[in-house]
Amino acid sequence: MTQGPRYPELIQSLPSSVPFVGPEVQERELGRPFRARLGANESVFGPSPWAVAAMQDEAAEIWKYADATNHDLKAELALRMGVTPQNVVLGEGIDGILGYTVRLLVAPGDAVVTSDGAYPTFNYHVHGYGGVLHKVPFRDDHEDIDALLDKAREVEAKLVYLSNPDNPMGSWHSGEVIEKALDRIPDGTLLVLDEAYIEFAPDGTAPRIDPEDPRVVRMRTFSKGYGLAGARVGYAVGAQPLIRAYDKVRNHFGMNRAAQIGALAALQDDTWIEEVVGLVGAAKERIGTIAKASGVTALPSAANFVAVDLGRDGDYARAVLKALIAEGVFVRMPFVAPQDRCIRISAGTPADLDVLAEVLPVALETAQR
Amino acid sequence: MTQGPRYPELIQSLPSSVPFVGPEVQERELGRPFRARLGANESVFGPSPWAVAAMQDEAAEIWKYADATNHDLKAELALRMGVTPQNVVLGEGIDGILGYTVRLLVAPGDAVVTSDGAYPTFNYHVHGYGGVLHKVPFRDDHEDIDALLDKAREVEAKLVYLSNPDNPMGSWHSGEVIEKALDRIPDGTLLVLDEAYIEFAPDGTAPRIDPEDPRVVRMRTFSKGYGLAGARVGYAVGAQPLIRAYDKVRNHFGMNRAAQIGALAALQDDTWIEEVVGLVGAAKERIGTIAKASGVTALPSAANFVAVDLGRDGDYARAVLKALIAEGVFVRMPFVAPQDRCIRISAGTPADLDVLAEVLPVALETAQR
Repeated sequence: MTQGPRYPELIQSLPSSVPFVGPEVQERELGRPFRARLGANESVFGPSPWAVAAMQDEAAEIWKYADATNHDLKAELALRMGVTPQNVVLGEGIDGILGYTVRLLVAPGDAVVTSDGAYPTFNYHVHGYGGVLHKVPFRDDHEDIDALLDKAREVEAKLVYLSNPDNPMGSWHSGEVIEKALDRIPDGTLLVLDEAYIEFAPDGTAPRIDPEDPRVVRMRTFSKGYGLAGARVGYAVGAQPLIRAYDKVRNHFGMNRAAQIGALAALQDDTWIEEVVGLVGAAKERIGTIAKASGVTALPSAANFVAVDLGRDGDYARAVLKALIAEGVFVRMPFVAPQDRCIRISAGTPADLDVLAEVLPVALETAQR
Repeated sequence: MTQGPRYPELIQSLPSSVPFVGPEVQERELGRPFRARLGANESVFGPSPWAVAAMQDEAAEIWKYADATNHDLKAELALRMGVTPQNVVLGEGIDGILGYTVRLLVAPGDAVVTSDGAYPTFNYHVHGYGGVLHKVPFRDDHEDIDALLDKAREVEAKLVYLSNPDNPMGSWHSGEVIEKALDRIPDGTLLVLDEAYIEFAPDGTAPRIDPEDPRVVRMRTFSKGYGLAGARVGYAVGAQPLIRAYDKVRNHFGMNRAAQIGALAALQDDTWIEEVVGLVGAAKERIGTIAKASGVTALPSAANFVAVDLGRDGDYARAVLKALIAEGVFVRMPFVAPQDRCIRISAGTPADLDVLAEVLPVALETAQR
């Protein structure tokens, strides 16, 4: 046989490793299903019954491609956000939209700024398009807005990434703090404000932003509060010229039809999202109680997960994580010190948390051996 | 406000136009739904009842991300194709996988070869990554394999695109012809063999290809025969080093969970796909009859649509198309002469084709005025 395909240098340079190993892969390795699925910040409480019914009703219609303009869902989102439909773009989860955003702005060698230990999939996309990542450390377990903006100015960043509430720590800044930060964004830098967990945050966490502000794009998702992680519906809100630019690169027919229709139904069920936020609050409290009972500390969280500070180093936390997984509890943890002293536990059902209460002391003991 | 984001030159150069305008956009313009949806080569016969049931059962579980490795679906596909799971990658429709394929191979300025008038979404991706498209004309309404390979050699193409059966003409080459062509692929060129419509083609249309052959990647989809266009499940089969490379760039968690599970159920329902192929065959015959009754000619087709030769030029065909749409029949047509003397009509239900039989003579008359 002859020579294979010729990959460009950039592609050759990329690692073959993947950002996350999913729970199904781990279950196949373990040879049994997890007893509690608390690692991916999914919503164990599920989507609105309206969304479930809408998706079931649409199942037989799935022979049709989805509306490539996402008209109805976009219109409802715009109404609720107080923007125009031209300020909104839908995509295959925030992951998909982050990819498009990096592709739109980052040419090989361009600088991008993020926090060391923030969302790995953003970094995956930046590497994938040849961007150069500059990372600043967390400060007191918070993303350090001042340091991010200083670094962005220093390296003339095309993008600066900030998640609020933050993943993996669950910490947050008030909307006011972010509003003030907007004026410090360097000319020509776009702030990527990832608000995946905003539904769980205290009132006032979402900054008021003029939808035509060219300095920022905010990202939202149906994967967390709305319980539709497997549907893949994320969206970005920003100035019209930026939103139009996504049409140059996105997979126009990339969205699942039932997902589009399910997301619209989910969005309209205000009761359900309120209920879920309440259930998540109760679950976070219980995780705090379970942690305390084992002598470890749940950190405050504005998201649907809790970072539990194990009080030692990363090696210890990794040992605890490994023991939890071996005992059938799927959890994840921060990648970078000193945040990697924690494990990250998603809000679970009471039954999930019963398992956690049973298994956490065992895992802590195993790790101490 | 300050300066907006700084787009790289490549992005600035891209047009804001989109590859296809969907039927929903046209319906909103018309102010009423289409009477017959025959423009996007969807399967009006729908997916297997097994797939519908599987997706409905999974609706409440959609709070979970899909298995990012697509393990179960990939295993079943591999079994049926006689390859290993390491020869298969899943993606968000062939559209998604074409995008990844172009990204993997094409750096700005790299040459790519296709037929003039072949799939526009492939061209969209090539432009989007800065590739330089070289187009060769159809020959007797067939993609011209010799000309494609000659051009690929001449311009040292990274990719050469061939759809078999062809879209938009429905013409095809035998598997044997393609097998012989494999040895003429230039060193370092990858043949992208788009087999989206293969389920409808005569036996022997799919070439036998060694899965480890580094010169070709074949693309298949659940959007056509399997009736899951709105689910967004496509796959590529190729040599393991190439398939591994997709993991460097794909949106690992980009697939819809219910779609993944629905596709697996659809794949296992051999009876349904046989039935659909039969129904499509009957529909194509009826389109032939309807065309003949109006004095126009349906061309032979190995796909789930028919190119109907109107016997005049592109302006005339465009006028007929416009009249069909105004009368409530969604159809499309080839973009490039001389194929643009045709309109392209997807296989419809008997009720759809009753509408076509009623409306086609009216549209032909309108266009002749």
